[in-house]
Amino acid sequence: MSTVTRRDIVSFAGVLAAGLSRTAAAQQSEPAPGADRARAPRTTSRAADLTDAELQAMFERCSNWGRWGADDELGTMNYVTAAKRLAAAQLVTTGEVVSIGRDISKTQSKVDARPVQHMVMYNANGPAIGDYVSIAPHGMTITHLDALCHFSVDDTLYNGRKRAGTVTADGAQWGSIYALRAGIFTRGVLLDVAAARGVSWYESNEYVTVADFEAAEKRQNVRVESGDVILVRTGMESMEQARGLQDTYPRAGLHAECAEWMHQREVAVYGGDCIEKLPYPSERFTSAIHMIVLVAMGLPILDWPALTTLAATCARLDRYSFLLTAAPMRLPGGTSSPVNPLCVF
Amino acid sequence: MSTVTRRDIVSFAGVLAAGLSRTAAAQQSEPAPGADRARAPRTTSRAADLTDAELQAMFERCSNWGRWGADDELGTMNYVTAAKRLAAAQLVTTGEVVSIGRDISKTQSKVDARPVQHMVMYNANGPAIGDYVSIAPHGMTITHLDALCHFSVDDTLYNGRKRAGTVTADGAQWGSIYALRAGIFTRGVLLDVAAARGVSWYESNEYVTVADFEAAEKRQNVRVESGDVILVRTGMESMEQARGLQDTYPRAGLHAECAEWMHQREVAVYGGDCIEKLPYPSERFTSAIHMIVLVAMGLPILDWPALTTLAATCARLDRYSFLLTAAPMRLPGGTSSPVNPLCVF
Amino acid sequence: MSTVTRRDIVSFAGVLAAGLSRTAAAQQSEPAPGADRARAPRTTSRAADLTDAELQAMFERCSNWGRWGADDELGTMNYVTAAKRLAAAQLVTTGEVVSIGRDISKTQSKVDARPVQHMVMYNANGPAIGDYVSIAPHGMTITHLDALCHFSVDDTLYNGRKRAGTVTADGAQWGSIYALRAGIFTRGVLLDVAAARGVSWYESNEYVTVADFEAAEKRQNVRVESGDVILVRTGMESMEQARGLQDTYPRAGLHAECAEWMHQREVAVYGGDCIEKLPYPSERFTSAIHMIVLVAMGLPILDWPALTTLAATCARLDRYSFLLTAAPMRLPGGTSSPVNPLCVF
Amino acid sequence: MSTVTRRDIVSFAGVLAAGLSRTAAAQQSEPAPGADRARAPRTTSRAADLTDAELQAMFERCSNWGRWGADDELGTMNYVTAAKRLAAAQLVTTGEVVSIGRDISKTQSKVDARPVQHMVMYNANGPAIGDYVSIAPHGMTITHLDALCHFSVDDTLYNGRKRAGTVTADGAQWGSIYALRAGIFTRGVLLDVAAARGVSWYESNEYVTVADFEAAEKRQNVRVESGDVILVRTGMESMEQARGLQDTYPRAGLHAECAEWMHQREVAVYGGDCIEKLPYPSERFTSAIHMIVLVAMGLPILDWPALTTLAATCARLDRYSFLLTAAPMRLPGGTSSPVNPLCVF
Repeated sequence: MSTVTRRDIVSFAGVLAAGLSRTAAAQQSEPAPGADRARAPRTTSRAADLTDAELQAMFERCSNWGRWGADDELGTMNYVTAAKRLAAAQLVTTGEVVSIGRDISKTQSKVDARPVQHMVMYNANGPAIGDYVSIAPHGMTITHLDALCHFSVDDTLYNGRKRAGTVTADGAQWGSIYALRAGIFTRGVLLDVAAARGVSWYESNEYVTVADFEAAEKRQNVRVESGDVILVRTGMESMEQARGLQDTYPRAGLHAECAEWMHQREVAVYGGDCIEKLPYPSERFTSAIHMIVLVAMGLPILDWPALTTLAATCARLDRYSFLLTAAPMRLPGGTSSPVNPLCVF
Repeated sequence: MSTVTRRDIVSFAGVLAAGLSRTAAAQQSEPAPGADRARAPRTTSRAADLTDAELQAMFERCSNWGRWGADDELGTMNYVTAAKRLAAAQLVTTGEVVSIGRDISKTQSKVDARPVQHMVMYNANGPAIGDYVSIAPHGMTITHLDALCHFSVDDTLYNGRKRAGTVTADGAQWGSIYALRAGIFTRGVLLDVAAARGVSWYESNEYVTVADFEAAEKRQNVRVESGDVILVRTGMESMEQARGLQDTYPRAGLHAECAEWMHQREVAVYGGDCIEKLPYPSERFTSAIHMIVLVAMGLPILDWPALTTLAATCARLDRYSFLLTAAPMRLPGGTSSPVNPLCVF
Repeated sequence: MSTVTRRDIVSFAGVLAAGLSRTAAAQQSEPAPGADRARAPRTTSRAADLTDAELQAMFERCSNWGRWGADDELGTMNYVTAAKRLAAAQLVTTGEVVSIGRDISKTQSKVDARPVQHMVMYNANGPAIGDYVSIAPHGMTITHLDALCHFSVDDTLYNGRKRAGTVTADGAQWGSIYALRAGIFTRGVLLDVAAARGVSWYESNEYVTVADFEAAEKRQNVRVESGDVILVRTGMESMEQARGLQDTYPRAGLHAECAEWMHQREVAVYGGDCIEKLPYPSERFTSAIHMIVLVAMGLPILDWPALTTLAATCARLDRYSFLLTAAPMRLPGGTSSPVNPLCVF
Repeated sequence: MSTVTRRDIVSFAGVLAAGLSRTAAAQQSEPAPGADRARAPRTTSRAADLTDAELQAMFERCSNWGRWGADDELGTMNYVTAAKRLAAAQLVTTGEVVSIGRDISKTQSKVDARPVQHMVMYNANGPAIGDYVSIAPHGMTITHLDALCHFSVDDTLYNGRKRAGTVTADGAQWGSIYALRAGIFTRGVLLDVAAARGVSWYESNEYVTVADFEAAEKRQNVRVESGDVILVRTGMESMEQARGLQDTYPRAGLHAECAEWMHQREVAVYGGDCIEKLPYPSERFTSAIHMIVLVAMGLPILDWPALTTLAATCARLDRYSFLLTAAPMRLPGGTSSPVNPLCVF
């Protein structure tokens, strides 16, 4: 695996954006990709990991390029129709609300080299105080929404737009978070794959597979449908509570096959306490989920929701679907936005 | 009017936080307060402007200190019960959604001396791009939610908490935006006072009064109730479209009597394309609305929603109430958060 | 000692600006001031610590208000005449240069809650890269120059200027770092008080006194003169190398009597690996050195130069005076600027 | 000329870093390169503009790769020996000092899309105030020093180091501004080419040539020598005073032949109120000066010194050489640093 490829793996999770400390990266021993594939637990529903050629074929099968027009920037958010929103609102039966944003940390850590900076401004003892915040939403600590432009494959963004000429240091002129300015208001479904597997958490070398998704559906008596936001819980927060902050990789995460399942089910947004398996055993699709989901499908990712309270609420109420709403900042050119999604029961 | 008082007036709208250029401030001719009172159109429901003593009495009448316990940080958000949220969800009948966040500008202007800075980070041509945003939400351009700690009276915050010892350069340890982390999910009511008055916009020296509120209610056949978010439209956006950016003051805005009306109606959140009348003719309550609403009542303010599309939608559907939802960043210590509220019909 | 006073002590060193973590502050046991005075090593040349009244009298004796005109913003930099600069240049005999700036850290620590943030910007693989830096120079990690406006006494700045009305959230309109835009180019003198005392470092509860200054002068065969920059070395870097980062206080530092000595010797700038003794045993002059030096005398402080290599160079060459040059950013309104001073032999 | 090439031209001056507004870029009519070459005033000492092949040959002739060792990061700063510094100090004869830093602007403009942000932090009315500055030094407004890593050719930096693997979003691990931490202390020479040509300023379509350099030397009776900093004055500040801010390009600037002259004369640092001619008529060396000077020669560039006062001082004293000193922030990984150079006579 070349240096470039290794760096790409790190960057896939936006760790590049967060400026992960070199120390953390250096702590990793660098297994040969083959060795890694061999060692990884075989819990996928496939006989073996996908080859680059198979992933390329999946990329093409999952492609929504042109599906909603050549200028479409909404991608799978097109599945969220007015009727879908109406139905989602009707899921509210008690008015109980659970915020699934994580508390914003201002502390540098091994998963957050460039933490939020926050300061209150001088007011000469006047009656008002104001503040200033700087924030790099990508990375592994802030609950945020990935814009479709966050990833490219062969320097090409969702819907076939070339990244060069579209993105500058000032922002993305297409496929930015601004495209999602009307927000998300749809049905959310929690897939508690940790509970379905009967574990407190997925270990960092384990995959989440389609079989896990479907086991959770079955256990929870729910079926993911067109326009849903799915929230996948592997128990990462529990693991961190027990063991402290974990390294950025290896990390438990989705097997690439989950992308195709989301495509088939017409999922609108993916969120989870994991993203894809890290490192992902592919030379070309080093960030298989991000690359297929964001670039081929045009499916925004909701990174790092807090799912512990939500899972407890779902278990208590024995219902795993609810209204989910979130809206990014209307930031032209943004590759992301912090969000604080609300789940309403 | 002393220099300090004049500065306080400027600061009341968070303009201090936004770092309003001195030039803009200097452009103002400085009328004596008496002259200003005389000149201001007399459209309030009161015979005359309120004296400082009357405002102090109103402050005390409107006080919710202790009402929900000595440690309460939610203030009027306590009016938003689960039942209220359920009822709000049931207002959704078509699934049409209107985002009322304003587009975030990165351009310095006379109303925004410290604009958002945004940059995409270097990635050595890797597949991912990430970004960084710095933002000072207060001021007159960004749609944001004011935390209760944003204002003080006699260095005292809502519920009687002393500001000294509570607020540092790092943030507020009490009454911060973090207290509102569960978000807003309730009924929203547009009060289109410009339409009710039959004007395109309020001129910058005009007050919005209780009579205007009630005229809008009557015209729109709606009544503001406990737990509602009210959104007051004076037509500011129309004026700016016609005339360009306006000075930060004088500005049309609420007469202080509106605060007491909100108290009586048990409004949860106030939002508008104006805030209070600027400058406000009081030596002590230079920011009468902010001071009474945030400090006495504990009522969060939703500054600078975009109301043009919302008003058109309400007019088209002939309904002025809807589900409104918004959630601030979970930023410990924040005095504010940018938000992008959704109105769902 | 009241809470406010305690906070002021913390803030005196610009720790407020650096956003010292509450944890670090909380680790301090809070001795009664009397107890503290009793416990502090008695190594000053005075029989006892100075009372507030004595410090007030010293403040007045050291005052340069009006000395160089009512509008003077240069303070003791007035001692650096063209003749002084010429003489300083003539000190260069070998051309050996020692940079005494500290490396800028991007790592959060107990002495730096708000570290420098640095990022390279996206360039779409173009030939150029550019970067962005955010920096809060005050605190205990960055080598920086304090502007005269950094401190006030009774809300009054150097030369009697009122702080209210002069300073806003946007900067100081008077006494800012911009006043020092012509830079520093004068004789520097190292006072290696650790060497003079025969210790590797001053312990954190020890004072640097006038006797120490004069012992260093005698040992080094040098005499501090009008217009000099003095650099005082207590061995703080050696202590940190041996023991790791130290708490922000208690810290070894100057006894207030050193301020008066600097006044008598007409020192232009004070720099050191310490500043004043922390905490300083005074209710009123909780930051005695900053308050007397910046406010009364108008003497800029060069915080946190790196002195280990300089001391070794001076020892090797057996000369303790040299040309010192540094120039702050020409930042209108700044309370500080990072600098990288050069000492040329 | 391809889109990429056009963008590169813009970026060459660090305009990418400064985030030049698209509007400004769009205002440019886009002449074919050939047309541009034909139109440009023929004042170079060459018969015609250099072809890409000639520039490539010049790049190779000017290369210092390996000259000072494979790990050298100092480049032409190696010319500044201790003897050179001593001689520079001896140039000081009167002690008169001229700061050639430009005042830092906080105002967005057509040459500065991402201006410095500066704010004073809250202190609850304590005696100290501190501040925070964010700064993107590249671009056309801030006096700054370019690190050698600022430019690459074929993704290769000075001394043959590959950029990929060396530079991340967090900074450059080699060839950064940190390599220049010992600062600049050497002879400075002003080349007032505007005066030598007898014009108030160079028009924006004019080149500065070797003939101009040598005419200035002759007129000023000075000869540029090994280890000098040269400061080239085209009168840009005079033009801006007369006409207001100019577009970022076209701009007067150095013909590429000047790079080779600097190589022959062993110039240590180039500074000027211009950099290279913009746009530069080359497909490959779109930023010929930056590419040859930074990458081939390893010669740091001092961008945007203020030269009006310096030129007046030189004229008054009839001497064009002086001690020049400047020191960048010791920022590991930085591609630049703001500096405030001092010229001492």
